[in-house]
Amino acid sequence: MGHGIRENMGRRGSEKTAEPKGVFAATLTPLDEDLSIDRWVFVDHCRRLLDAGCHGLSVFGTTGEANSLSVDERLAALEALVEEGVPGESLLPGTGSCALTEAIRLSRAALEMGVADVLVLPPFYYKGVSDEGIFRFFAELIERVGDERLRVYLYHIPHMAGVGFSLPLIGRLIEAYPSVVVGTKDSAGDWERIKTLCREFPGFSVFVGTERYLLSTLRHGGAGCISATVNVTSRLARQIYDLHLAERGEEADALQDRLTGLRETIEAFPLIPALKGLMLELTKEEAWRNIRPPLVGLDEEQVRDLLARLPDSELL
Amino acid sequence: MGHGIRENMGRRGSEKTAEPKGVFAATLTPLDEDLSIDRWVFVDHCRRLLDAGCHGLSVFGTTGEANSLSVDERLAALEALVEEGVPGESLLPGTGSCALTEAIRLSRAALEMGVADVLVLPPFYYKGVSDEGIFRFFAELIERVGDERLRVYLYHIPHMAGVGFSLPLIGRLIEAYPSVVVGTKDSAGDWERIKTLCREFPGFSVFVGTERYLLSTLRHGGAGCISATVNVTSRLARQIYDLHLAERGEEADALQDRLTGLRETIEAFPLIPALKGLMLELTKEEAWRNIRPPLVGLDEEQVRDLLARLPDSELL
Repeated sequence: MGHGIRENMGRRGSEKTAEPKGVFAATLTPLDEDLSIDRWVFVDHCRRLLDAGCHGLSVFGTTGEANSLSVDERLAALEALVEEGVPGESLLPGTGSCALTEAIRLSRAALEMGVADVLVLPPFYYKGVSDEGIFRFFAELIERVGDERLRVYLYHIPHMAGVGFSLPLIGRLIEAYPSVVVGTKDSAGDWERIKTLCREFPGFSVFVGTERYLLSTLRHGGAGCISATVNVTSRLARQIYDLHLAERGEEADALQDRLTGLRETIEAFPLIPALKGLMLELTKEEAWRNIRPPLVGLDEEQVRDLLARLPDSELL
Repeated sequence: MGHGIRENMGRRGSEKTAEPKGVFAATLTPLDEDLSIDRWVFVDHCRRLLDAGCHGLSVFGTTGEANSLSVDERLAALEALVEEGVPGESLLPGTGSCALTEAIRLSRAALEMGVADVLVLPPFYYKGVSDEGIFRFFAELIERVGDERLRVYLYHIPHMAGVGFSLPLIGRLIEAYPSVVVGTKDSAGDWERIKTLCREFPGFSVFVGTERYLLSTLRHGGAGCISATVNVTSRLARQIYDLHLAERGEEADALQDRLTGLRETIEAFPLIPALKGLMLELTKEEAWRNIRPPLVGLDEEQVRDLLARLPDSELL
């Protein structure tokens, strides 16, 4: 394995576009009845989220059922977004795979479409793997993509992937590839870890995986949140971000309490099915009715129960 | 979702080839230095295993680093085997994927190459999924492949996949698709479960995932074993199978003790790296030196240690 890229890549932030920050939706993927991606509802949803205040869209993460889709399906849908004018700088697609060759293909293709920021899971089939093994996966990925524009965000979601990023591993990756490994989405749900990441790795963009900690993360110098529930709470989440920037702390706190309440209500249900159920109610688009197995949609009673608990004027 | 296949598929065993039985190697995948599959060493290895007595080859399972390979890589290597004359009836490739569309593509392509028996993981990204969700995944897979020749073996390896097959789920799948869902490879390492499977599902082919339980499984009516260590223990394992068939129980027991000892020695090391290390020693083929991240090869000291503990005349 050569280390050409590594040697040629110092911190050259000025040659890159600004690093993403703020409120990101872990974007849902609408599906037709045959379970193929409904690209037009997908494009509409992405536009609506940006209009509602999202700074960016993390398409093809856990919420987007990325691993339930083939590489070709993910790439075709990403292309549809870009072709329909969703700005590449607002996208942070998941390009991880258990297979190094697929992660490379996805990341390269994203770059070719003008999407430089990618969210990458660790390879998640084998369990109990070493930090050395995960380091080698990312080293090979970065070297083989071989493109200075690439910016990798480490996707830490150990309760789902079964494999995660230890703090020493994160430190080692940043040290080896300082201009590439620039951030993380941390969905471990562990506030102490978020604080530690913000403190230990200055300049590293820390996105928290739930908007419950949006304001706290911003106050500790984190970049923002990338969250499933932002598919329906983006306006409120963005208001909090803006109030924080304007140093209107008390108002931000009050809205954060409301946002946290919404999050708690929704996450009492299976999260992705609940969000698709809400989208169906809010938009009446049939493409929100469908979900890929092994996930299963909410039944009608669950949807009614969820809606009864939500002040719908706050959603979307 | 239509249920055409389901309705049209009774138990029509007679139209199919005989169901696989016996000693199967969970075949290792040799890789070139650039981590691509070395197809010629792979073909040689498969031929050697069949010559050494394996009844069949379960290529592209956990041991074969299947999930570290792209769909295209898996299909090209499977094609190489078939083109080079490895009989389709002796192959039981892994065709599982988290993505339904990829599992369909892999399974269809195997059928087109004359390979009807496939070993299928449950979708393994999402954790805590319901039996209903896994059932739907397999129902969609079977319906969409839509080929009466297909025979699915359920690959139960919960400590790796993080998702497994409950007994009620297995029963439901057999009932819904009796001529398709015909067996399982069970790598849970739980002997009580193997006995239960053999008892509860007569006619269902139960392969145990370690040759430690080869003889016991055969004695309980199971089909055999599909095991990683069979890459180097196939002659001995086959002898045990033949002694069992010949009702030479005491001799079989004695050999089983030796086989179990070999297995224990090897599995004290990280299993796939250890087996690749052994293959390198035994064949001197450089393609056994390489492994895809996140797995990491043994270091030289570990290899020496492993070799010192093994009576190498019994291997290969």
